[in-house]
Amino acid sequence: MQIKLEQLAEFIDKQSTAFVGTLDDLGYPNIKAMLSPIKREGLKTFWFHTNAPSLKVRQARANPKTCLYFCDTAQFRGLMLRGKTEVVNDDAIKTGLWREAFTMYYKGGALGGDFILLKFTAETGRFYFGFDSDDFVVE
Amino acid sequence: MQIKLEQLAEFIDKQSTAFVGTLDDLGYPNIKAMLSPIKREGLKTFWFHTNAPSLKVRQARANPKTCLYFCDTAQFRGLMLRGKTEVVNDDAIKTGLWREAFTMYYKGGALGGDFILLKFTAETGRFYFGFDSDDFVVE
Repeated sequence: MQIKLEQLAEFIDKQSTAFVGTLDDLGYPNIKAMLSPIKREGLKTFWFHTNAPSLKVRQARANPKTCLYFCDTAQFRGLMLRGKTEVVNDDAIKTGLWREAFTMYYKGGALGGDFILLKFTAETGRFYFGFDSDDFVVE
Repeated sequence: MQIKLEQLAEFIDKQSTAFVGTLDDLGYPNIKAMLSPIKREGLKTFWFHTNAPSLKVRQARANPKTCLYFCDTAQFRGLMLRGKTEVVNDDAIKTGLWREAFTMYYKGGALGGDFILLKFTAETGRFYFGFDSDDFVVE
C-alpha cells in the first residue's frame, strides 16, 4: 500500500457525494448517489441518512453486501470500499445523529417520519490513482 | 414515465463520467468511474474502451450482470441503467472504434496491446430527479 490511510480519509472528506452500490432482487448491481456520510469512523464505518421506503433500504435489508465509492474525476482518483450495510432504525441512535437541517428532507423529524440510517462497515478497499490501483484490508 | 427518452439521452451525453457497477468474485457490487462511452445507440447499447487485464473485464466475463449510472450531483439527477456487459475483443470492431487519441492509454494501438471493448446492453432504467424516480423498460 503506497498511500496512507489518513490520506484516504482526507480524500473521502473532500467529496460531496458518495456512490452506493447495492444488489437488486435479480442479483444485478445498482448504483445511487448519496449525500456524503453524516458520520465517519476511520475508513471502517460510515453512517448515511435516507428515506425508510427507499429502494436501497429494501435492497440492503435483503442483501447487506454493498460498496461505497468516492471519486475525484478531475484527478482520476477513486476509492472503493467493500463491506456490509445495516439498516438502523434505533430511536436513540437516530436522535443522536439527527440535525435540524434534515427537516428539509424528513418533515416528521428524527422519530416521526421516514428518517432512517444506513450503517456501512468496510472490509476491504481499493484506491485508484491514474492507471494504478492499490488493494488493502480495512482493519 | 414523465421524462422522454430523448431527454435522457441528452442527459447522458452531458456527463463526462459513467459509473459502472459490476459483481466481484464474492458477490459484492463494485463501482468504478469510466470515461463516457465512445459509442451510444439510443439508451440500449453503450461501448466503452478499457484495458484487457482490468478487474472489471474479468468481472464482466464471470458475471455479465452490470449497471451504468450517470449523475448530475448539482441537480440531484441520476440515471441508472441495468443490463448486461459483454467483453468484445473482435479485431474488426476494435479497429472500427479505435481513435488515434487512444494511443495515450494503449501504446500497442487498436490490435497490438491491451485495448479492449465493453458493450453494455440496457434492459431497464430508473431516472432520479430530486426526491422522485421513474422506472422504465429499455426496448
